[in-house]
Amino acid sequence: MASNPAGRPTLAVVGATGSVGAVLLQILSQHADIWGEIRLVASARSAGRKLTLRGAEVEVVALEESVFDGVDVAMFDVPDEVAAEWAPVAASKGVVVVDNSAAFRMDPDVPLVVPEVNPHAARVRPRGIISSANCTTLSMIVAVGALHAEFGLSELVVSSYQAVSGAGRAGVETLRAQLSLVAGTELGTSPGDVRRAVGEQTGPFPEPVALNVVPWAGSLREDGWSSEEMKVRDETRKILGLPDLKVAVTCVRVPVVTTHSATVHARFQSEVTVDKAREILATAPGVVLFDNPAAGEFPTPADAVGTDPTWVGRLRRSLDDPAGLELFVCGDNLRKGAALNTAQIAELVAAEFIGA
Amino acid sequence: MASNPAGRPTLAVVGATGSVGAVLLQILSQHADIWGEIRLVASARSAGRKLTLRGAEVEVVALEESVFDGVDVAMFDVPDEVAAEWAPVAASKGVVVVDNSAAFRMDPDVPLVVPEVNPHAARVRPRGIISSANCTTLSMIVAVGALHAEFGLSELVVSSYQAVSGAGRAGVETLRAQLSLVAGTELGTSPGDVRRAVGEQTGPFPEPVALNVVPWAGSLREDGWSSEEMKVRDETRKILGLPDLKVAVTCVRVPVVTTHSATVHARFQSEVTVDKAREILATAPGVVLFDNPAAGEFPTPADAVGTDPTWVGRLRRSLDDPAGLELFVCGDNLRKGAALNTAQIAELVAAEFIGA
Repeated sequence: MASNPAGRPTLAVVGATGSVGAVLLQILSQHADIWGEIRLVASARSAGRKLTLRGAEVEVVALEESVFDGVDVAMFDVPDEVAAEWAPVAASKGVVVVDNSAAFRMDPDVPLVVPEVNPHAARVRPRGIISSANCTTLSMIVAVGALHAEFGLSELVVSSYQAVSGAGRAGVETLRAQLSLVAGTELGTSPGDVRRAVGEQTGPFPEPVALNVVPWAGSLREDGWSSEEMKVRDETRKILGLPDLKVAVTCVRVPVVTTHSATVHARFQSEVTVDKAREILATAPGVVLFDNPAAGEFPTPADAVGTDPTWVGRLRRSLDDPAGLELFVCGDNLRKGAALNTAQIAELVAAEFIGA
Repeated sequence: MASNPAGRPTLAVVGATGSVGAVLLQILSQHADIWGEIRLVASARSAGRKLTLRGAEVEVVALEESVFDGVDVAMFDVPDEVAAEWAPVAASKGVVVVDNSAAFRMDPDVPLVVPEVNPHAARVRPRGIISSANCTTLSMIVAVGALHAEFGLSELVVSSYQAVSGAGRAGVETLRAQLSLVAGTELGTSPGDVRRAVGEQTGPFPEPVALNVVPWAGSLREDGWSSEEMKVRDETRKILGLPDLKVAVTCVRVPVVTTHSATVHARFQSEVTVDKAREILATAPGVVLFDNPAAGEFPTPADAVGTDPTWVGRLRRSLDDPAGLELFVCGDNLRKGAALNTAQIAELVAAEFIGA
């Protein structure tokens, strides 16, 4: 327990000025205030900026070793290579690091935690680092984890509908620029017309995303898989503690600003019923069941954006497999998909300090 | 053989003024000209309009029994209830009807034909009617059918990314109107903001489709399934002649003007290799294999729109199942998904007349 006189742990937010950082500051201002001092840390370029946190202005300081002096918990939302370098530095000073990058997720000595699914894992952290999962994994894992706890999962087939903010502010700016080009035109009806109109303005995406869908996210891995697809498979297995789970994923970018959606085909170890699945999802923490097609109710990004839970709908038992369920899920990729899950893990850790 | 002096069959196009009808007239003007007279037929409201066909102007006539006098083949692209009433009228006069509606697709006495997959089925037509498949089925069935012929299909999991023109001109107009509202705004970042901006302007869709994805297409069937999802399952089984095939489908509308995409998880009766699958798809009629992620090559609607083939990419063997393949497919829903398949079937039938 550190320097804070009120007995509350000291927090550092590393990467406070990014798009996930902005949501993190909102969440820290809204959640029950369990923290003592909160230090906002970013690259030297952003040092000196003032950000609003818990109703007050806080000056951003530059990332260097001394910012971790007296810190109990640090949330990292920075690129993989920055996390790889700096999380061990913080951990070596006794800080518990909660890292939102991919740098440590598959490290066997780093737990990968989704508080609704495997909170216990956060306590065993040999390197002093806890990882938060990828946004696409987080768009469905809370709902899938609740169903797994009841039925026992044997196979997942996931197709994503990923928002452009998953590629950061540049992703959002790119979509907005492209939408301005295509609004009010006849584009989208002849071969290559959208590509010609957009020209080189594809930003972080390999192809135009306005009036289009792009079956690619991340970088190329072996045998044609994308890094994003491998993350969803590997992280799902680790979070659920099912190293042999059959998982097939295809990741597709869509022209949505924020909120990842996914179709999920889930097979279980034995027969399932929609009634029982509904009962589980209706009471699962972090899940909203929004599923009444007769009344026009099913989740869309327009519903889920800006909210905390995983929205679940279109629940059907597979017609040709009594052990299968189909669902459609939506989750805000900047909230549960990033900032919220990081904050929830940090709050789990803070409870240890406060309880101590 | 009918009244045409040149020995070529006479064709009627019923529903010539709709959005699929417009593409049909293009195709009839571009393909090898095997037809004698072509009559353009529509509702009484559209009678008297002149449309360009094979470089000449043709006057649209109103749908009534006499328009089928002397006709050999009729292509129908009209609503289900119009087809249900008028296709039997035409058939009773000896006309071979090729119907693009859902009215007869599951009738055991009506073949459901995709010329690349089951051309032989077109010859057995006890009611004088041949059905063309649904646009979403057609977005993937040519590629899946080619793989089935080699490997023997045992299971399909399909998630669609469906264009708004699948809902006709009203669908396209709705997306364009919504895009004009959201272009240049900060919409899409807070709960319900897109819905409030769009208001009642959702056209044929239950929810806003700009900056959104909508997991619904068609009408409500039993147990939460949509009619579109049932069509993909039932039609796939019928076309492939696999009445017990396991099929799980989730249909989702996306803000794309034209071209349906789908992710396909396909399991086969025995082990598959990507090399063999590539070999099959590279030479399959009606398929373009566009699959080199290292060079940024994978299909998107912006590539496929306005073209005839099914574009296939992102080919991967399922990581956890040696009998599984993952693919991403794109097909123009107005061309192969509707007008082109109808024209191809009619051309098969015309060949019987010409060969006779």
